[in-house]
Amino acid sequence: MSVARGGRLSPEISQAMAELNTSVQVDSVLWREDIDGSLAHVQGLVGAGVLSPDEAGALTSGLEQVAREIESGAMRWDPAKEDVHMNVEARLAEIVGPVGGKLHTGRSRNDQVATDLRLWVRRKVDEVLAALGEMGNVLLDVAEREIDVLMPAYTHLQRAQTSRLSHHLMAWQEMLLRDGLRLVDARARLNESPLGAGAVAGTGFPVDREAVARHLGFDRAMRNSIDATASRDFLMEAASALSILGVHLSRIGEEIVIWSTLEFGFVTLSDQFSTSSSMMPQKKNPDVAELVRGKCARLVGCVTTLLVLEKSLSLGYGRDLQEDKRPIFDAFEAALVSVRALSGALATARWNQGKLEGALSEGHLCATDLADYLVARGMPFRQAHHVVGGLVAEAEARGVQLGQLPREVLVSQDASLGEKEVASALDPREAVERRKVVGGPARERVIAAIRDARARWS
Amino acid sequence: MSVARGGRLSPEISQAMAELNTSVQVDSVLWREDIDGSLAHVQGLVGAGVLSPDEAGALTSGLEQVAREIESGAMRWDPAKEDVHMNVEARLAEIVGPVGGKLHTGRSRNDQVATDLRLWVRRKVDEVLAALGEMGNVLLDVAEREIDVLMPAYTHLQRAQTSRLSHHLMAWQEMLLRDGLRLVDARARLNESPLGAGAVAGTGFPVDREAVARHLGFDRAMRNSIDATASRDFLMEAASALSILGVHLSRIGEEIVIWSTLEFGFVTLSDQFSTSSSMMPQKKNPDVAELVRGKCARLVGCVTTLLVLEKSLSLGYGRDLQEDKRPIFDAFEAALVSVRALSGALATARWNQGKLEGALSEGHLCATDLADYLVARGMPFRQAHHVVGGLVAEAEARGVQLGQLPREVLVSQDASLGEKEVASALDPREAVERRKVVGGPARERVIAAIRDARARWS
Amino acid sequence: MSVARGGRLSPEISQAMAELNTSVQVDSVLWREDIDGSLAHVQGLVGAGVLSPDEAGALTSGLEQVAREIESGAMRWDPAKEDVHMNVEARLAEIVGPVGGKLHTGRSRNDQVATDLRLWVRRKVDEVLAALGEMGNVLLDVAEREIDVLMPAYTHLQRAQTSRLSHHLMAWQEMLLRDGLRLVDARARLNESPLGAGAVAGTGFPVDREAVARHLGFDRAMRNSIDATASRDFLMEAASALSILGVHLSRIGEEIVIWSTLEFGFVTLSDQFSTSSSMMPQKKNPDVAELVRGKCARLVGCVTTLLVLEKSLSLGYGRDLQEDKRPIFDAFEAALVSVRALSGALATARWNQGKLEGALSEGHLCATDLADYLVARGMPFRQAHHVVGGLVAEAEARGVQLGQLPREVLVSQDASLGEKEVASALDPREAVERRKVVGGPARERVIAAIRDARARWS
Amino acid sequence: MSVARGGRLSPEISQAMAELNTSVQVDSVLWREDIDGSLAHVQGLVGAGVLSPDEAGALTSGLEQVAREIESGAMRWDPAKEDVHMNVEARLAEIVGPVGGKLHTGRSRNDQVATDLRLWVRRKVDEVLAALGEMGNVLLDVAEREIDVLMPAYTHLQRAQTSRLSHHLMAWQEMLLRDGLRLVDARARLNESPLGAGAVAGTGFPVDREAVARHLGFDRAMRNSIDATASRDFLMEAASALSILGVHLSRIGEEIVIWSTLEFGFVTLSDQFSTSSSMMPQKKNPDVAELVRGKCARLVGCVTTLLVLEKSLSLGYGRDLQEDKRPIFDAFEAALVSVRALSGALATARWNQGKLEGALSEGHLCATDLADYLVARGMPFRQAHHVVGGLVAEAEARGVQLGQLPREVLVSQDASLGEKEVASALDPREAVERRKVVGGPARERVIAAIRDARARWS
Repeated sequence: MSVARGGRLSPEISQAMAELNTSVQVDSVLWREDIDGSLAHVQGLVGAGVLSPDEAGALTSGLEQVAREIESGAMRWDPAKEDVHMNVEARLAEIVGPVGGKLHTGRSRNDQVATDLRLWVRRKVDEVLAALGEMGNVLLDVAEREIDVLMPAYTHLQRAQTSRLSHHLMAWQEMLLRDGLRLVDARARLNESPLGAGAVAGTGFPVDREAVARHLGFDRAMRNSIDATASRDFLMEAASALSILGVHLSRIGEEIVIWSTLEFGFVTLSDQFSTSSSMMPQKKNPDVAELVRGKCARLVGCVTTLLVLEKSLSLGYGRDLQEDKRPIFDAFEAALVSVRALSGALATARWNQGKLEGALSEGHLCATDLADYLVARGMPFRQAHHVVGGLVAEAEARGVQLGQLPREVLVSQDASLGEKEVASALDPREAVERRKVVGGPARERVIAAIRDARARWS
Repeated sequence: MSVARGGRLSPEISQAMAELNTSVQVDSVLWREDIDGSLAHVQGLVGAGVLSPDEAGALTSGLEQVAREIESGAMRWDPAKEDVHMNVEARLAEIVGPVGGKLHTGRSRNDQVATDLRLWVRRKVDEVLAALGEMGNVLLDVAEREIDVLMPAYTHLQRAQTSRLSHHLMAWQEMLLRDGLRLVDARARLNESPLGAGAVAGTGFPVDREAVARHLGFDRAMRNSIDATASRDFLMEAASALSILGVHLSRIGEEIVIWSTLEFGFVTLSDQFSTSSSMMPQKKNPDVAELVRGKCARLVGCVTTLLVLEKSLSLGYGRDLQEDKRPIFDAFEAALVSVRALSGALATARWNQGKLEGALSEGHLCATDLADYLVARGMPFRQAHHVVGGLVAEAEARGVQLGQLPREVLVSQDASLGEKEVASALDPREAVERRKVVGGPARERVIAAIRDARARWS
Repeated sequence: MSVARGGRLSPEISQAMAELNTSVQVDSVLWREDIDGSLAHVQGLVGAGVLSPDEAGALTSGLEQVAREIESGAMRWDPAKEDVHMNVEARLAEIVGPVGGKLHTGRSRNDQVATDLRLWVRRKVDEVLAALGEMGNVLLDVAEREIDVLMPAYTHLQRAQTSRLSHHLMAWQEMLLRDGLRLVDARARLNESPLGAGAVAGTGFPVDREAVARHLGFDRAMRNSIDATASRDFLMEAASALSILGVHLSRIGEEIVIWSTLEFGFVTLSDQFSTSSSMMPQKKNPDVAELVRGKCARLVGCVTTLLVLEKSLSLGYGRDLQEDKRPIFDAFEAALVSVRALSGALATARWNQGKLEGALSEGHLCATDLADYLVARGMPFRQAHHVVGGLVAEAEARGVQLGQLPREVLVSQDASLGEKEVASALDPREAVERRKVVGGPARERVIAAIRDARARWS
Repeated sequence: MSVARGGRLSPEISQAMAELNTSVQVDSVLWREDIDGSLAHVQGLVGAGVLSPDEAGALTSGLEQVAREIESGAMRWDPAKEDVHMNVEARLAEIVGPVGGKLHTGRSRNDQVATDLRLWVRRKVDEVLAALGEMGNVLLDVAEREIDVLMPAYTHLQRAQTSRLSHHLMAWQEMLLRDGLRLVDARARLNESPLGAGAVAGTGFPVDREAVARHLGFDRAMRNSIDATASRDFLMEAASALSILGVHLSRIGEEIVIWSTLEFGFVTLSDQFSTSSSMMPQKKNPDVAELVRGKCARLVGCVTTLLVLEKSLSLGYGRDLQEDKRPIFDAFEAALVSVRALSGALATARWNQGKLEGALSEGHLCATDLADYLVARGMPFRQAHHVVGGLVAEAEARGVQLGQLPREVLVSQDASLGEKEVASALDPREAVERRKVVGGPARERVIAAIRDARARWS
């Protein structure tokens, strides 16, 4: 019999309803936070004079015993008791007897679950931040190690200009750093205590909500009992931050997939992070990167679910909110496993300098540099752009690179193209070092960016 | 050691990668279809001369034993074996010895999982269709039983015109009938066999794919091996159909929530489909309807996940597709549990005629009828609308209903409003029976609609 | 002054409300359907005895004049008149005088807009189907023309097995064909007439709804007035079908982007479908394919919007539905422009046989064939897979292809690998022709598939 | 002819491609920011020695003239010039002659559009924050004015406990305050300058990027040129924050819709924020609240579009990003119009004290208080909950409220229920004042909360 039935309602519940109604298979994940919240609530009830110190002691050690049983796997979760809260309370009552019936005084599952969720999300944000920190370090280490490896920068997946591998990895790192900061902001905003809000209109007992909040590491008690029990923007915000992170991870994943092809050949994943095929014996697949892209889809689905779920709900608590757990649990799981695996894959990958730098030789990567050369000699950029575009068309027609065009072809466009400095404009190594502007790929600039980033991550 | 490793790749896999990579916790749901697919594949291999009848017999009875072990709970699922396919094959090999290594001949996990998924979705569509059929019957039965109960039709949740409860329930039924037909279409489109497509370019053995397809109840073999292994539009289509169904269920849920309020009081759910509160002893909550709304959010999240997942994937199979399972499993689970519970709640609910018909007395529900009355006497509708609007404003100012306005006020607007037929225009019971047009709420019309709908559902 | 104000409500509307409320900037797109619906409604009112033939004639020619004015750009759309319906009706009234006020008799904007939307979607579905038909033909023509061009089939974007370009193009074509059929199903389901459903409870006049429906080319009148005015599953279904189509187009787009890289070099888009860079004079970018991927994102957003919009709406019509127009208009626009541009890009692209077939030479594409060879000689597939996997590892270590391994290395694994038939197993051209199973890439099989597909498209 | 064509590419573009490719209809919205960015870039080029002061002066006054022309509506936007950037530059060239061709030196549309978008979003965030601040003030004013109006607090839309209107309005206000703070965080994170990142690898000229950044009010130059041009997380973050805001607005909208029903009757919108029906003359509909719910759906669609769009894009800039504009423009438009209209509706609404307080009389709102009463007398809460649940069932069976049960029925459950203090426990006015805990609805507590909130908003 469900703990909450048998008073106002007849005890029986339909089988179809029970299947819809039960949630303990999902929300038992919250057990640790549920018990922590109850321990703090016991202190609150002592302060309010509802519990004697003896009663509080009994409840506290009973709760600790439940925690140990759950941790050890001894707990028997019962779907008929609906959820994690009722399962824990029922087991507590078995252990401590009638005093167990005092725990839920001045509390509702509505403020209880809101508290559990905030504690859980806070803990998980910290885990993601730690994993992100590690991934940031991996990227900085690789960027440092491969500082001398050049490669094309791409736009539209077409070779665009000369750049360096480290500069590209630093772009990834910038994205991830912002992702971390978004989570830091979300964490600060959610770190408030709903406990004491009761079902909707606040507890009827003189609990010191601020003290209870501090007990749980919250910054303060939430300021409105209806808001405290009915709002879930902290879940939407965390899921949004994770889905943006997921987008970034999937962008990295996409590049790893492409760079792992035989055609590009820029990177080789270690066997530890590769998989083969059940049919094709020769296959070595970048599944890690594909799975990360796939997890990103799930992250988008999770935030969508949460937004859709909350939309147009009247206040206070409605049971629709039961469905907020699976998406947020899924989202953190998907994010964590993705960051960790991708981080490991990057830490153990081999970068193929030959292929990366080989890609500089075709694609007229210095066309912009040639236009800039003309600009420096006074030609308006639009005209220079047009002149060089025509030279590229000519080179394509002849099947050569820009630098291989006969001098007379060049000079026919502009006399200055006959000077020997043109060779310098068309040299990919010089080209990359010319881009020493803030945020550019010149060697010294990237080294400084790595140093700067180390400070920001820590 | 993973079955697919140790040849081309070193046997070790990183822990982080293993966590990302393993899927058996999710895809073991497919075990029945995986074994059915393998049984059909065995027949295909016999036909292709790859297996002798004896080998086929051994594999067949071995697969049947694996099925029994899984059904009984005896199977030990091993995450290190990655997925349901490898777990089943590994257990088979333990049972039948070396011949087990022949099962995967001419097959890849790529065509195997595509086959499993199509079989699974086909079965689940049938379950949803059966549950929907039951829900349709419940609605038709209630509509028939409550045929004489009037109520307002609402727009903008404001009382609009006179209608009847059965007419409203029939609107729900129409929506659900289309939902069912969408699933029927999806089922027909997906009922093709990928088996024999191999990894991507087709099996290298002369398997009779059409015979294997028939064996599995498919209408035909898929016509292109790359498409067969890389496409998942059947999942997106099924999930879309389920999410539209979810939207409809959530609309019904919303109305149940509103109609269950003390303020409306139109319907009382049975205790079997109600829940109470952990804190407030008086509560009887329409959780069933709220949970159904919540499940709809998950359905939207599932179809979003699948669309996002598939977007921009190059062909053929990529590992991103591993992530298509959880959303489709979730979607069918959410849909099934929602249809069944809502169906039960409706079958056992009590409709409160007093409140439903009491709602006709306020809200000037016959204002349109009065305008129509003026139109019948020759006034252009726009003018009639304006005249009656003014009368409503006057009635509101006096705090009375339209029919309670003094005759002189009416006559001041139009002489015809002094005639005694005005009373008939303003009578709610007559108003509803006047709407005998196809699709209208007049009694005989709704009875005919119920009869017609019974035929369409069957 | 808004047409619907000034009776019951005071005429003024707040500026902020007016901005939220007006929709004519968006819904004027529906003008043709709005006028067609009104023309049919006029016939319905004649049949119901509400309009005289003369009045009907005046309204008809007035409506036709409005249509001409809109077509020619002479119409002055007025946001203060809220929407397309009121703008058209107001202009009609200017033209025909007081009889214009009779048009809206027995009708509401609720059934009117539902009718307009169904007519509009029906027309747009036909446009998409025509564009898809053209794209299908382009693909079949190219597949026919390039029938002799081989290429690798990929999984995980890694070279997997030998295949042919036509086979790959036929996979695209299969996906698009199903997309078309989904739209055909959606069209059949939506082709019902809401007209006569009135605001929610049906028109009060004896209109022959079936005749009006036939007049508009609908299959029947909708069977429930509440459903007719409140349901929008036809929009969700059409948007779902379009978003699945979008996913497929974006998959094609992704492959074009990758295949257009210098690294792959499989395809060269014509200049007509390429763009350059504002800065880099050498760039020729596959923007067409990227924009199509981008439009797919919008399509996913559109269906999400519609699902979220409809969720949990009580019946009948609510003003939330105003927001259903922009996403459905956007979705059809995005789909049409994408199909047409991609179709043109494919029709004019150049396929680079040298690069496509050159890709067969590396990647051990015949490893599966070698395993199959061992299977044909009696080795269980799992063992053969392992043996060949080891040979691939050996070849990789030596930096050679499988076929270049010394005979003694091969024979050390299995004596049969010393036979001269091994060369045939490892020949990519023979490998593709061996896959003559239904759905396989063998030449004759693909030719038959093209012929079969031509019949299915027509 | 497109500005960027005719060099490398042939000048013609296909019609289908042109339709897909052009964006000026959408992105002309950015004209102000585009010109501001160009003005700053001119300063940067002067600093880099690329432009002489005279040239800079000519370009500056030319740009200002273009701005004036656009503002006055005189600008002729040309779709063939693709986008806002090329249209502005082309017009500038007409005005200033050949020097116009120097503006784009060392710049690409890639860093240009990223700059424009950041400037635009920053401005729009400020507009939303201002509108939110006004809405917060409206809520605080109403809360202050209606401080003495009681009402039930609801859970599951069922009456739960006694509360006060102001407490409910303060819950809305808390949600909106967090929404504002999320936007403040997003604004701080996006306020960095991409200008100088060029196409992808940084400008080739010695521009002082930090000075240019300061010129545009940015906090700094972005630290990585690839990230600066390819990342759009600032759009995803802003859209996420707006969609969460939209969820909150739609929750308020839902309550307004429900509270505006005749059945609830809690609030009456002013005519200025109401609409009527084209058919039903009596209707006064809460369209403002419904439209706001509808806009929330669009906001969810917008963030989904952006997440889907960005997912799996390789770096740097790809043309998919063209599609990021419409969703972000739509999102800000939807949010702004919603906040402003809802704010106005709330500022002018009338709260019906009679109906709000009348709702306290039914629903056993003090059942929790009665249980708390028993707890205070020593009964464990679980037992008290059960006892009171039984009493509620008894009262329901008798058709009375809890306080109307005969004394002997009460006493039969617990002797203390015969004491006269029970009346106090069951008095709704006393019940609400008992909840004086932090975050509770007691009068003094809410007054303090209003005061505290005023400080936090300012």
